[in-house]
Amino acid sequence: MHAISHYQELISKHFDSLILQKEPTNLYEPIQYILALGGKRLRPVLTLMATEVFDADAEKALAAATAVEVFHNFSLIHDDIMDDAPLRRGKETVHEKWNINTGILSGDAMLILAYQYFEEYEPTIFRALAQLFSKTALEVCEGQQYDVDFETRDDVTIPEYMKMIEYKTAVLVGAAMKMGAIVAETSTENANAIYDFGLNLGIAFQLQDDYLDAFGNPETFGKQVGGDIIENKKTYLYLKAMEFASETQKEQLLHLFSIQPNDNTDKINSVKEIFNETGASQATQKAIESYTLKALKTLDEVHISVDKKNILEAFAQKLMSRNV
Amino acid sequence: MHAISHYQELISKHFDSLILQKEPTNLYEPIQYILALGGKRLRPVLTLMATEVFDADAEKALAAATAVEVFHNFSLIHDDIMDDAPLRRGKETVHEKWNINTGILSGDAMLILAYQYFEEYEPTIFRALAQLFSKTALEVCEGQQYDVDFETRDDVTIPEYMKMIEYKTAVLVGAAMKMGAIVAETSTENANAIYDFGLNLGIAFQLQDDYLDAFGNPETFGKQVGGDIIENKKTYLYLKAMEFASETQKEQLLHLFSIQPNDNTDKINSVKEIFNETGASQATQKAIESYTLKALKTLDEVHISVDKKNILEAFAQKLMSRNV
Repeated sequence: MHAISHYQELISKHFDSLILQKEPTNLYEPIQYILALGGKRLRPVLTLMATEVFDADAEKALAAATAVEVFHNFSLIHDDIMDDAPLRRGKETVHEKWNINTGILSGDAMLILAYQYFEEYEPTIFRALAQLFSKTALEVCEGQQYDVDFETRDDVTIPEYMKMIEYKTAVLVGAAMKMGAIVAETSTENANAIYDFGLNLGIAFQLQDDYLDAFGNPETFGKQVGGDIIENKKTYLYLKAMEFASETQKEQLLHLFSIQPNDNTDKINSVKEIFNETGASQATQKAIESYTLKALKTLDEVHISVDKKNILEAFAQKLMSRNV
Repeated sequence: MHAISHYQELISKHFDSLILQKEPTNLYEPIQYILALGGKRLRPVLTLMATEVFDADAEKALAAATAVEVFHNFSLIHDDIMDDAPLRRGKETVHEKWNINTGILSGDAMLILAYQYFEEYEPTIFRALAQLFSKTALEVCEGQQYDVDFETRDDVTIPEYMKMIEYKTAVLVGAAMKMGAIVAETSTENANAIYDFGLNLGIAFQLQDDYLDAFGNPETFGKQVGGDIIENKKTYLYLKAMEFASETQKEQLLHLFSIQPNDNTDKINSVKEIFNETGASQATQKAIESYTLKALKTLDEVHISVDKKNILEAFAQKLMSRNV
């Protein structure tokens, strides 16, 4: 096993070496562009890590890791069109830099390319990877649809919200790790346990994203703090606040989530105050902790050495202790 | 071997039995909708036919045939967004009936669903089908990109145009037939020959579509005759006309392809006259014949009985003798 930075370097080098300069240029340039924006490469790193946890060489998993990252970037391109987002990782989104049609078509090509990376593996592994990938990719689409649906609904429940973030975000984290297990040809039991580890970690990660969007450090958060509040997004914080709120607080929150002032400072501060007063902030932190613990608990079912468990545990703790 | 109508019925019944009524409704309803619009189901019929040509049961190929048809409909949804098309098969397009975001996301889900249908097959066949499918799907995207690029280019050559229609249309016809060969587990030689048969037939079919768009019988053509002319599309007819035209004819054609009159009757008639006078119409018919012959010639390399060859030949002749 290696340090995370080792896997990050491996992935980063691998992406630099990917040849995607093909004709027609207008199809492949946007793909090059979004992949070059980088990002944390969290998912492919998890694939490589899982492969070594199960005693195979990380190099063997590079193709599967690439598929996961290319798929993730496909979903970003199409989601950004749907959300009308101007920026991604601080740079213009694909549909802004080119146009919507380019975003649609280059995204489509990336989804297909993702499947092609699995062709490096022999039939049984290929089938297992592609099958897991299809199931996961479809769930990601379903999660995105729920997210879109929730925008115009006033009666979203916490279980519905949890299902949405599980599908939209967490299943891909679980699948990324399970792909490492598949490439390493470990037992089904191990593969399923590492999937659950990734899944629960992914849920915790997304809840933390919700939390940090409101309460993160503005100097290090990267995104605009309060972005979800400005967009009236029904996050876990919001749903919990509505659950716990008194009639007065409920009215206040509903009012605040109906206005779009030019200067959002007061709105953000008032909403955050309600999140704190109702106990929604605390409940969110508790949920983050609970899903992280659930993830760590699944490691009991994984048959690997203690030092490998420690590495996964350290990784989970590190990911969850971020405050940016 | 059976008559074409037999395969059409088989496919049609199979599509009626597909269960796609899943949650979230807003994702799966548009998929149901476009698949229920029907159409000729030409590609899946070819998959079933090819399977029986190589002595396997057509039933065995239903899943692969479904993948081909679902992919084709995915590409229609996304292309219709890009072309801003209001109608498909006489009904509202998905993005018109719902919205662009729905069209993007439901299309994405269909592309993934297509891969999932291959999961019915054991690893070696699964891998062969998925690999051919990915290659083909990527070429279809490339073909669509070339088509988009050509709209704003004045220097498109005939070879470029041929490559575009090959990728955008013909490769899927070839792949549909080769999938039948793969499911039937025939020789690689047979599989490649039937691919070439489908590919060349697909090219002939598209050239004929170009021709009929201008010269088809308005009462039976289904689409608006002259549609390509109204949209100033640089079809084979147009490119050949530009190649053969005198300076005066070239100026006339360029002028006609720069105007957008309220009543297009005169424009259509004038353009058709130039297509005829320059010999472009005749050249197009010759090209259709030439690609049909090329398709039939590849049957020499397929190791099947004479009566099976006759069936494929009859099918090709029937397809190419359509005047609607």
